[in-house]
Amino acid sequence: MNKTRGRRPGNPKTRTRILTAARERLLAHGYAGTTLRAVAADAGVDVALISYYFGSKQGLFSAVMTLAVSPPAVLTAVLEGDPEQLPERLLAAVTAAWEDSAGGAPLRALVSLALAEPAVLQAVVKFFEREVITHLAEHLGGPQATARAAAALTTIAGLVFTRYVLGLHPLAGAPREQVIRLLAPAIRVSLAIPRTR
Amino acid sequence: MNKTRGRRPGNPKTRTRILTAARERLLAHGYAGTTLRAVAADAGVDVALISYYFGSKQGLFSAVMTLAVSPPAVLTAVLEGDPEQLPERLLAAVTAAWEDSAGGAPLRALVSLALAEPAVLQAVVKFFEREVITHLAEHLGGPQATARAAAALTTIAGLVFTRYVLGLHPLAGAPREQVIRLLAPAIRVSLAIPRTR
Repeated sequence: MNKTRGRRPGNPKTRTRILTAARERLLAHGYAGTTLRAVAADAGVDVALISYYFGSKQGLFSAVMTLAVSPPAVLTAVLEGDPEQLPERLLAAVTAAWEDSAGGAPLRALVSLALAEPAVLQAVVKFFEREVITHLAEHLGGPQATARAAAALTTIAGLVFTRYVLGLHPLAGAPREQVIRLLAPAIRVSLAIPRTR
Repeated sequence: MNKTRGRRPGNPKTRTRILTAARERLLAHGYAGTTLRAVAADAGVDVALISYYFGSKQGLFSAVMTLAVSPPAVLTAVLEGDPEQLPERLLAAVTAAWEDSAGGAPLRALVSLALAEPAVLQAVVKFFEREVITHLAEHLGGPQATARAAAALTTIAGLVFTRYVLGLHPLAGAPREQVIRLLAPAIRVSLAIPRTR
């Protein structure tokens, strides 16, 4: 059975081919307009292989999201280094990801998909709660770590929302360096809340 | 001409009737699904009256938006009082507006509309730039007033995005009072940026 119809469970190239096809379909047709059958056809694999690798359409979507940009991997890199400069590194990483010529478009597409499709929104939200907020909170440690992580990420979310989703000026038009300088104090105080009082 | 077909240019009741009908249509059918003809029929007026009062569909939308919730009016009220407690008052006003049983639903509908419809997004963004950021900056005064206003409103935007649009925990599930306590320090430091260095 392993050799019929080109099925090669466990072959990383097949997995990558499915992910590439799914990503292109999702960006072009949205979540609702993407069928597993069409992705399978684009990838030249049997549709059952998608279930084998990703479980469901939502599982496939989560995998595609991680392929386009991996927030947990970015966060892990950002957490290394001088804790005093963590706000600046967080802001630099987020603005770099969104302003990257290759990575920015998938992020925008992902946000559009998530806002149009409740199932996708739910997947993205769970992903961020588990992989980003919890991860940052564990790194911070100390009292109210989750609340401090959430407070700091609220300002980051506001930056993403106003600068990249809404295009709200003046932040949408300001140079990255200025944005980092402007928002770092707020993030620094959020990360330190219990220590300052 | 003034008396034919029920046209009463300049009659505030007619204007209110159009706004009420437009608001209901927009909430039920979205921006794209709302026609001026249908609004006119609901309001029992000639469609030409809508152009007379509001200029265009976008103009009508802006007027509806202001009717549902008036951010400039809320901001004006918030700016009165002890400047030291401005962050807490800002956060209290925003969370109250979004959690109000009557006012919250139109705000959610407005955000959905804006994110689905570029023309609406543009109208909302221009409205906020002109009526909220500029207004707050003028109130703050001093160096970099616009940048400070924008920085403070970035955290507010992040709160709206994560708590009300995405439903991201823990902020989405926290009591209002806790959210206010948690985010006030970030907003305070943003408003004060030039003074602290």
